[in-house]
Amino acid sequence: MTTITINEVGLRDGLQSLSTVMPTAAKQRWIDSAYAAGVRHMEVASFVPARLLPQMADARQVVAHALSYPDLVVTVLAPNLRGAQDALDAGAQRIVAPVSVSTAHSLANVRRTPQQMVEELGRMCQLRSDTGRHGVQMIAGMSVAFGCTRQGDVPLADLCALTRQVIEAGCDLVSLGDTTGYANPGQVAQVIQAVRGIAGERLRAAHFHDTRGLALANSLVAVQQGIVELDASLAGLGGCPFAPGASGNTVTEDLVFMLQAMGHDTGIDLQALIDSRQVLRDALPDEALYGAIARAGLPLNYRGIA
Amino acid sequence: MTTITINEVGLRDGLQSLSTVMPTAAKQRWIDSAYAAGVRHMEVASFVPARLLPQMADARQVVAHALSYPDLVVTVLAPNLRGAQDALDAGAQRIVAPVSVSTAHSLANVRRTPQQMVEELGRMCQLRSDTGRHGVQMIAGMSVAFGCTRQGDVPLADLCALTRQVIEAGCDLVSLGDTTGYANPGQVAQVIQAVRGIAGERLRAAHFHDTRGLALANSLVAVQQGIVELDASLAGLGGCPFAPGASGNTVTEDLVFMLQAMGHDTGIDLQALIDSRQVLRDALPDEALYGAIARAGLPLNYRGIA
Repeated sequence: MTTITINEVGLRDGLQSLSTVMPTAAKQRWIDSAYAAGVRHMEVASFVPARLLPQMADARQVVAHALSYPDLVVTVLAPNLRGAQDALDAGAQRIVAPVSVSTAHSLANVRRTPQQMVEELGRMCQLRSDTGRHGVQMIAGMSVAFGCTRQGDVPLADLCALTRQVIEAGCDLVSLGDTTGYANPGQVAQVIQAVRGIAGERLRAAHFHDTRGLALANSLVAVQQGIVELDASLAGLGGCPFAPGASGNTVTEDLVFMLQAMGHDTGIDLQALIDSRQVLRDALPDEALYGAIARAGLPLNYRGIA
Repeated sequence: MTTITINEVGLRDGLQSLSTVMPTAAKQRWIDSAYAAGVRHMEVASFVPARLLPQMADARQVVAHALSYPDLVVTVLAPNLRGAQDALDAGAQRIVAPVSVSTAHSLANVRRTPQQMVEELGRMCQLRSDTGRHGVQMIAGMSVAFGCTRQGDVPLADLCALTRQVIEAGCDLVSLGDTTGYANPGQVAQVIQAVRGIAGERLRAAHFHDTRGLALANSLVAVQQGIVELDASLAGLGGCPFAPGASGNTVTEDLVFMLQAMGHDTGIDLQALIDSRQVLRDALPDEALYGAIARAGLPLNYRGIA
């Protein structure tokens, strides 16, 4: 059995799609409760202009709070050099640059073609080195790696070519993102095998959405294929603007349940994680909270840490 | 890629747990619309006393309607010899006898110990032979094979011992049932391997519940392990009286989406299957309908039959 790192991305990918802006104090409580439950990797903010994403206007304060936990690995998203500069200034330990494999999605998301984004990633990696922040990890977040709501299929050849380029640009890690909830388990196995042939040990992480109910099955196959870090969001927060009513990211507590029931180690106290949903009920009373294990409760014979 | 048989069990396992009794005409419409979508295996009724399960009082009529489709394989559940006699009289082509691996569950479900149920199954198989109905398949439905809400763990040794006994009793097929939604994917692989060592080719089918969100991941592993027939229920109908608010059986349309997106063949037109949920909305307006693909819609690049 394997140790799997759970990267809680609700504070970034979950909150950015909500119309409600979560107050900074609530974000801090969320970090506190996730940490108390044993979560040691969190993606806590995006460094983007506040006029574009008011939900992330307090990114610097949120990162500062997360950094008050010495053993918490703090990741942020930065779509460009300016964001990377801000992220480095704030003290983030890992910076994700979203590199979309689909040109249509890339232009909509970061107003750059994939090629232009690779060049920007190169500048971000250079900045990291120039500022002597060699410990900061630069992550290429390969968006819409499994299909795109704008262009449909995303050819594996395109993903492989772009993976070569982001590695040449200097990234430390590659994460495969099913941004649109299009991935299926057979494809996940195939894509990981192909990308590992290019990225080798740099491919450690994957990011799934539950839009079409396959987040756990896809996460399972990712683990079968050697992925050791999975993104997820408490209560599946996030949603997808293209799929009204559908849940968003992989539900963290359901993922932890599946992995720990199988004997994998996530270091997380599942009951404490389930209880931490109270932070969301308090701060986002109008949002739907997803998740099966929170509703059904743990089995009588559950042997996880909880 | 494999041909996977989807056995729609909503008419039996879905309806039996609802307080509402679905009118016979609506059941017939459900069969019609499922057949029109390409479903060729359905478990349509239980042969039990109407005073215990009024939802199944019209079992004979429902079976007769299903048999009007010559290429539809019609399965029913029968908990005892009397039920098997009625099922044979009605013309059912496959009869499932529920054999619980947990004594506590077996007593609650069929008022017999597992041992007594094996003996009853022996009598049911004998009846099938005595009446010359050699084409009728007798299926041992191994209930709570992955864990029990009453006793917790269900030792694999108990399941293996009981599997030997049901085969000696004369059953043709063995189906592994996660009656309580306790199974996890690692366990599913382990259990299938162990039971196949005893049942061989008789182990073809599995039955999962989505109580804790793992129905699709468990179904995926079952297929990886050579299972070629999966039970599921339209809109996840069923629920579990021990897990309020949790969804019930594997959602048929989500299972079909996963399998067909992976390239497996189920013979089902997914969009037609999704559209057939209208039968449930009309006949059961107060019931929650589950399922991700019906909410989110098919991906742009979906290549199933639909």
